[in-house]
Amino acid sequence: MDLKDYIRDIPDFPEPGILFRDITTLLREPKAFQHVLDCLVEEYKDQQIDYVAGIESRGFIFGTPLALQLGCGFVPIRKPGKLPAATFSESYTLEYGKNTLEIHQDAFGIPGSRVLIIDDLLATGGTAVAAGKLVQKAGGTLAGFGFIIELTFLNGRAKLLEDVPAVALVSY
Amino acid sequence: MDLKDYIRDIPDFPEPGILFRDITTLLREPKAFQHVLDCLVEEYKDQQIDYVAGIESRGFIFGTPLALQLGCGFVPIRKPGKLPAATFSESYTLEYGKNTLEIHQDAFGIPGSRVLIIDDLLATGGTAVAAGKLVQKAGGTLAGFGFIIELTFLNGRAKLLEDVPAVALVSY
Repeated sequence: MDLKDYIRDIPDFPEPGILFRDITTLLREPKAFQHVLDCLVEEYKDQQIDYVAGIESRGFIFGTPLALQLGCGFVPIRKPGKLPAATFSESYTLEYGKNTLEIHQDAFGIPGSRVLIIDDLLATGGTAVAAGKLVQKAGGTLAGFGFIIELTFLNGRAKLLEDVPAVALVSY
Repeated sequence: MDLKDYIRDIPDFPEPGILFRDITTLLREPKAFQHVLDCLVEEYKDQQIDYVAGIESRGFIFGTPLALQLGCGFVPIRKPGKLPAATFSESYTLEYGKNTLEIHQDAFGIPGSRVLIIDDLLATGGTAVAAGKLVQKAGGTLAGFGFIIELTFLNGRAKLLEDVPAVALVSY
């Protein structure tokens, strides 16, 4: 199955000149969505993952079914002010401004837990790097980054930690 | 399994006087998270659901694995400006102000598709009612509302459509 057949291109979103890769057309097709999950499970089933951390919001879409399939806990990495208990924060710059992400300080039960970070898209890498720092602040060991789509021309992969494997199912 | 054992109470969040029911402690325990899914699958497996619509963001956490288990498509109902193609919108009032939700106009392949709306929490019901209207605007037939937690003292259930069954796994 070629996942690109299910990803829709939307020109000029969210800004003029940006070609947005829309996954909602993939999600609404059960066979395509299940195929994405099967690919992720195949990639990570022997990696001794303890927790899947999903980045709000599209990381939740793929991270939660993956956590359940792997028999792992799920940890949300969220936008500021959404997590109710004590958090760690990381701010980072984006093409369109500045963002902050948070994780619960007690997100992982045991220090050194192996944590896989899941998001839908690897673009400039800023979000993924911030999520990686949060996992480490909360005492987790980064086991990998998993993405559905990688925009290779933005070279985000170069920003990720070299010794942490990064996987993307589809590249543009 | 008593799911309340896995839900953490956080006083005075997001505002003084509010007791927040935190599900992150449930999500990080694989057996508890899987139990939630098993309960939802049991509830809906014979209901001929065509699409699960999850409300951003916590509705994504439960809606996506449920859609996959039921072999349904998943449709995100999102905050304004997040969905890239043509949308329908619904605004509604909240305790703390006003919110808007959006759905893609072409979310459902076939008019009359049976759509189950999933969110983590039924509080005053405003969010669920808006999501229900969006599903109908996009040509779907409302098959049910599924929640993890219901705050019965807020009486949100009274706002939902009478002929659409609503299920909550845990009540406070």
